[in-house]
Amino acid sequence: MAAMIVDKKDEKIIHLIRPEVQTMQVNHVPPSRGMIKLDARENPYTWPAYLRGEWLEEMQGVAMNRYPDPESTDLKARLRQVFDIPHGMELMLGNGLDELIQTISLAMRGAGRKVLAAVPTFSRFQMISAYAGMGFVGVPLNEEDFSLDIPAMLVAIEKHQPAVTYLASPNNPTGNTYSQDEIAQLLNATHGLVVVDESYFGFSGESLMAQLERYDNLLVMRSLSKMGLAGLRLGYLVGNPRWISQINSLRLPFNINVLTQFTAEFALNYFDVFEEQIEQIRRDRIWVAESIRRLKGVEVYESETNFILFRVAQGRANAVDAALKQKGILLRNLSDENPLLRDCLRVTVGKPSENVAFISALTSSV
Amino acid sequence: MAAMIVDKKDEKIIHLIRPEVQTMQVNHVPPSRGMIKLDARENPYTWPAYLRGEWLEEMQGVAMNRYPDPESTDLKARLRQVFDIPHGMELMLGNGLDELIQTISLAMRGAGRKVLAAVPTFSRFQMISAYAGMGFVGVPLNEEDFSLDIPAMLVAIEKHQPAVTYLASPNNPTGNTYSQDEIAQLLNATHGLVVVDESYFGFSGESLMAQLERYDNLLVMRSLSKMGLAGLRLGYLVGNPRWISQINSLRLPFNINVLTQFTAEFALNYFDVFEEQIEQIRRDRIWVAESIRRLKGVEVYESETNFILFRVAQGRANAVDAALKQKGILLRNLSDENPLLRDCLRVTVGKPSENVAFISALTSSV
Repeated sequence: MAAMIVDKKDEKIIHLIRPEVQTMQVNHVPPSRGMIKLDARENPYTWPAYLRGEWLEEMQGVAMNRYPDPESTDLKARLRQVFDIPHGMELMLGNGLDELIQTISLAMRGAGRKVLAAVPTFSRFQMISAYAGMGFVGVPLNEEDFSLDIPAMLVAIEKHQPAVTYLASPNNPTGNTYSQDEIAQLLNATHGLVVVDESYFGFSGESLMAQLERYDNLLVMRSLSKMGLAGLRLGYLVGNPRWISQINSLRLPFNINVLTQFTAEFALNYFDVFEEQIEQIRRDRIWVAESIRRLKGVEVYESETNFILFRVAQGRANAVDAALKQKGILLRNLSDENPLLRDCLRVTVGKPSENVAFISALTSSV
Repeated sequence: MAAMIVDKKDEKIIHLIRPEVQTMQVNHVPPSRGMIKLDARENPYTWPAYLRGEWLEEMQGVAMNRYPDPESTDLKARLRQVFDIPHGMELMLGNGLDELIQTISLAMRGAGRKVLAAVPTFSRFQMISAYAGMGFVGVPLNEEDFSLDIPAMLVAIEKHQPAVTYLASPNNPTGNTYSQDEIAQLLNATHGLVVVDESYFGFSGESLMAQLERYDNLLVMRSLSKMGLAGLRLGYLVGNPRWISQINSLRLPFNINVLTQFTAEFALNYFDVFEEQIEQIRRDRIWVAESIRRLKGVEVYESETNFILFRVAQGRANAVDAALKQKGILLRNLSDENPLLRDCLRVTVGKPSENVAFISALTSSV
């Protein structure tokens, strides 16, 4: 964009828009019509017909002409129940984790204020912190197994005094869960906030939620996306009411619309349906991982999520990605995103038939 | 909040949360169950049964398990068509005007950067700009008719060099439309951006949209709330692609969820239904205004919106508000919000039966 700004009319833009915004790149999502979509860590299953019928029936009662409940009272109560939110902890909702990250950033930004994360990780930690003007420090994970490099993290905490440290556990795009003892070491070392992203909690079963009482600088955030509601964009942040009330004071008052509130609450009433889908995906992940592992020259990483990271032969990632696309299969090519991910591709576990098509296409492409 | 922070555990909060955030007040929405709700500028009409049936039928096809189209391509095309967006102008969508204001603020904030508005006006201009750390300058409207005080605005522009000037036309809570010539004077005087909020365009019919080509510092924003979709929270910002592309680079990528995209597009296909509701409200506004005007000691202001601002006898606003609440009617008491609004109440035009109940209750309360 910046290079295009030359004309006289653009003087105001150059003067008024923050300089770092003028050089920002917008992420493009690849076209996916007619493709087997295994690029976006989505649950491949739609709702069973009876559930959809029930949902539409009950939706009759939603008042589209009235502003939503600014507190999402009923939905929050349901989230508490379904996800065993510890008594005494508070919740805040956002349109996806994105809005939660943005609100945290707005509450904590300031001159020299930095955000720290172990990388590679969810790109939005860096991106959205930058929107609010916070600098980013990325500490590489250990190369062999993508575990936390604790000595390097401790040095970075000491040196940069981050206001916020984001840890995704399980981590995207690597798929592994971090050790709770190691996270505890970081919680003890930093004077800043530690926000643990548990988006894949449904697949890993591990959570820091029970530690919220113990650490005065821990928050946990999750979303309903990986459970099968990516289209809804609902994220929730959990923590000590003293933290949440501060961050919540910056939340846009009617941020969660009536359809989202109604639909999320409805879906949570049938949580067992989604739990079964998650179980199915976990079972199929074993088959997909084993099938990739059998291919010569391909390395597969352990996953506690709904996707699998694998490494093809040196320099082959772009060719494999292109060949798969040619065969109608979309996955995520991470090879150029981070040195630790060289030659790496990430595939989401799909429906059994999609997985078979993927393995067959991959077999003839690597 | 700040006063409550005393305990040792809160040292981190005091240190890490921006000081101005620690003193922020959260707006509370009054409980409204069982009340005639005339406080929130909502369209009182729900959807006709056939429309609701059609909507639920078509909703079957929405994929809740997939991320939304990050560009809201279909919805934007529909908005262009229905609202005659000038060819060559770009659109950006947000969860209500709130998210648009937030994104504009994030794009333009910086040390000493200020936001200017004519006050009283929509409180979110000041509130959300403050979230992003921008200072606010409010220039009082003319007392007699709430028109723009152009000389005072010009002095303020010269003195504060605002990065953004927000003008709501028609203005909330005063109900009047600003003169287009006067807005042009401000556009010519400021080196900053002027964002005109046309939320009530459906009621006034007046728009600056045709001026976008002419001024390189004008943006227009609207929402679908007043048309009858307040629960959806959809706002749109229109302007020169060079401006919008810059602001859009800070938009959270999947900000508009699948249900909102689908439902807004669906509703716009039946725009005539909502136009009829708006016409009904406009007609009923005349009756409500005339009925208030007939009451002794009450002054009524002209409105080109779906609400009416009126002034009761000196010192009576709180008592009138309380008496109406007692009778089951919720309206907005603005008496303590701004010196220009002393003794003022704002009532939304409801359904005919609600309007009759309101007038009857008001008659015995003033």
